[in-house]
Amino acid sequence: MGSMDILVGKTVAIVGLGLMGGSLALALRGHGIRLVAIELDEATRALALERRVVDEATAVLEEGLRGAELAVLAAPVGAILSLLSRLPEACPNGCIVLDLGSTKEAIVAAMDRLPPAFRAVGGHPMCGKEVAGLAAAEAGLFAGQTFILCRSRRSDREAQSVAEAMVAAVGARPLWLAPDQHDRLVAQISHLPYFVAAALMADAALAAQSSDYLWQVSASGFHDTTRLAGSDPRMMRDIALTNRPAILAALLQYRRRLDEVLALLEKGDEDVLYQWLAARQAEHAAYVVAKSVRPGVNRG
Amino acid sequence: MGSMDILVGKTVAIVGLGLMGGSLALALRGHGIRLVAIELDEATRALALERRVVDEATAVLEEGLRGAELAVLAAPVGAILSLLSRLPEACPNGCIVLDLGSTKEAIVAAMDRLPPAFRAVGGHPMCGKEVAGLAAAEAGLFAGQTFILCRSRRSDREAQSVAEAMVAAVGARPLWLAPDQHDRLVAQISHLPYFVAAALMADAALAAQSSDYLWQVSASGFHDTTRLAGSDPRMMRDIALTNRPAILAALLQYRRRLDEVLALLEKGDEDVLYQWLAARQAEHAAYVVAKSVRPGVNRG
Repeated sequence: MGSMDILVGKTVAIVGLGLMGGSLALALRGHGIRLVAIELDEATRALALERRVVDEATAVLEEGLRGAELAVLAAPVGAILSLLSRLPEACPNGCIVLDLGSTKEAIVAAMDRLPPAFRAVGGHPMCGKEVAGLAAAEAGLFAGQTFILCRSRRSDREAQSVAEAMVAAVGARPLWLAPDQHDRLVAQISHLPYFVAAALMADAALAAQSSDYLWQVSASGFHDTTRLAGSDPRMMRDIALTNRPAILAALLQYRRRLDEVLALLEKGDEDVLYQWLAARQAEHAAYVVAKSVRPGVNRG
Repeated sequence: MGSMDILVGKTVAIVGLGLMGGSLALALRGHGIRLVAIELDEATRALALERRVVDEATAVLEEGLRGAELAVLAAPVGAILSLLSRLPEACPNGCIVLDLGSTKEAIVAAMDRLPPAFRAVGGHPMCGKEVAGLAAAEAGLFAGQTFILCRSRRSDREAQSVAEAMVAAVGARPLWLAPDQHDRLVAQISHLPYFVAAALMADAALAAQSSDYLWQVSASGFHDTTRLAGSDPRMMRDIALTNRPAILAALLQYRRRLDEVLALLEKGDEDVLYQWLAARQAEHAAYVVAKSVRPGVNRG
């Protein structure tokens, strides 16, 4: 684990002040870091300055990166890829780069192609909300959560230490994974649940059109199961486009699981049905225990 | 809406002191009602008396029903059906019957067959938790929630007033529905989400066997989407067996929706994908608004 001292006195440029970039800025306050936001939206820049989320804010990438030792790219994956391609011109002297993107293979491959003046580490904090934007940002978003880090060909020892110091500063726990390993894991545990929730939302919204009572009858179970359907479509589109094979594989396996459920219900064997349902309850209990024995790793 | 006065001085027998029966007893405390629990489990009876959840507790149905004006059947659907068949012998003079079962067609049909000494109303409070048992019971469980009521052939005016008074006493809002209408609505908004969550849990548990990192990488999205997988398997089995056609129909439609998602991802058209994702976000937002304009109807 890197010491947080390495960040003191440094200038950190955060590119994109949405939920993640804004929360990162808030979490880094009080660590002796000069924070500069690079954000295209004028109202967001004004809000950030008014609430002292950052010390400076600009819409111009070149300007924001001037003098920054570390650039944190906090945007949907597509925007991060575009930023990485603009970095060599926008910051000719190079800097350390960390991103907060939801998928890692495409981003780390782009980091590999950066000129040697750049040192770059891929990052993905395993937390979030179904609402986007600076207004939803909170300093405690990362506290106790897993923060995945991925080495690129441009990850030298200093870049890795800075990335770990950043993770420590926001109260998260670093977990180094290979980019493809990351993408397969999150396809299963994050992207599949999103699509499962979104499909459920689509069906319920259709059913609600022909019944005035559906929403009245809905309870906390429906609320929780569909929460992810509220996720930012731009973020989800970029995730889908950059992690397609892994998401498709997880979805195909999930569809086979649904066929198992359909067969169970069609057959209607009381005991076999009970065994299946009890196995799911046991798995859920085991998962809850597995999370709780690593206290603070996750809000779950 | 029935006046709550109708309950004052009455004896209410609650058959089954689990999460729902226990929460009902706690919510009815302080309304001038004598509460008797009929519960087979000795430790649960002892706990209920020790914590003054009820005034009396017995394992014997006949004993508990003696002198009760109202019997509330709070058990999985299969146990409620069995209780309804035993009522004529256990309570020869009859009483008013209300149940809290998760499906309503089979139960209301059984109520229809009760001798005329009984007056019966089907009930289903739209709330719950993924944990079962008296220890998880709480007085506020029903507060602000929708409490569905279904008339049977044995529902006279007094039974309906008593049922509404009970709903009001626990702070819920009555919604009268036909049993088949209830069962179709909950298949869509409650049973389908359960099976969707359980299938997701099954896939993740399998994947976790071959990756030490899966649970570490999991975050609140997975937690919420799979929460229902922890539901009581006995309750879910009975739901599945008594609402099979409606659940199968909802699941088949859901599988078609997943095929739509698979096709979207396979095609990978950026704009079409974005439109689909944005439609889900809009539907989620509309659902959240629909719930919030009926304040207190649901925790969601």
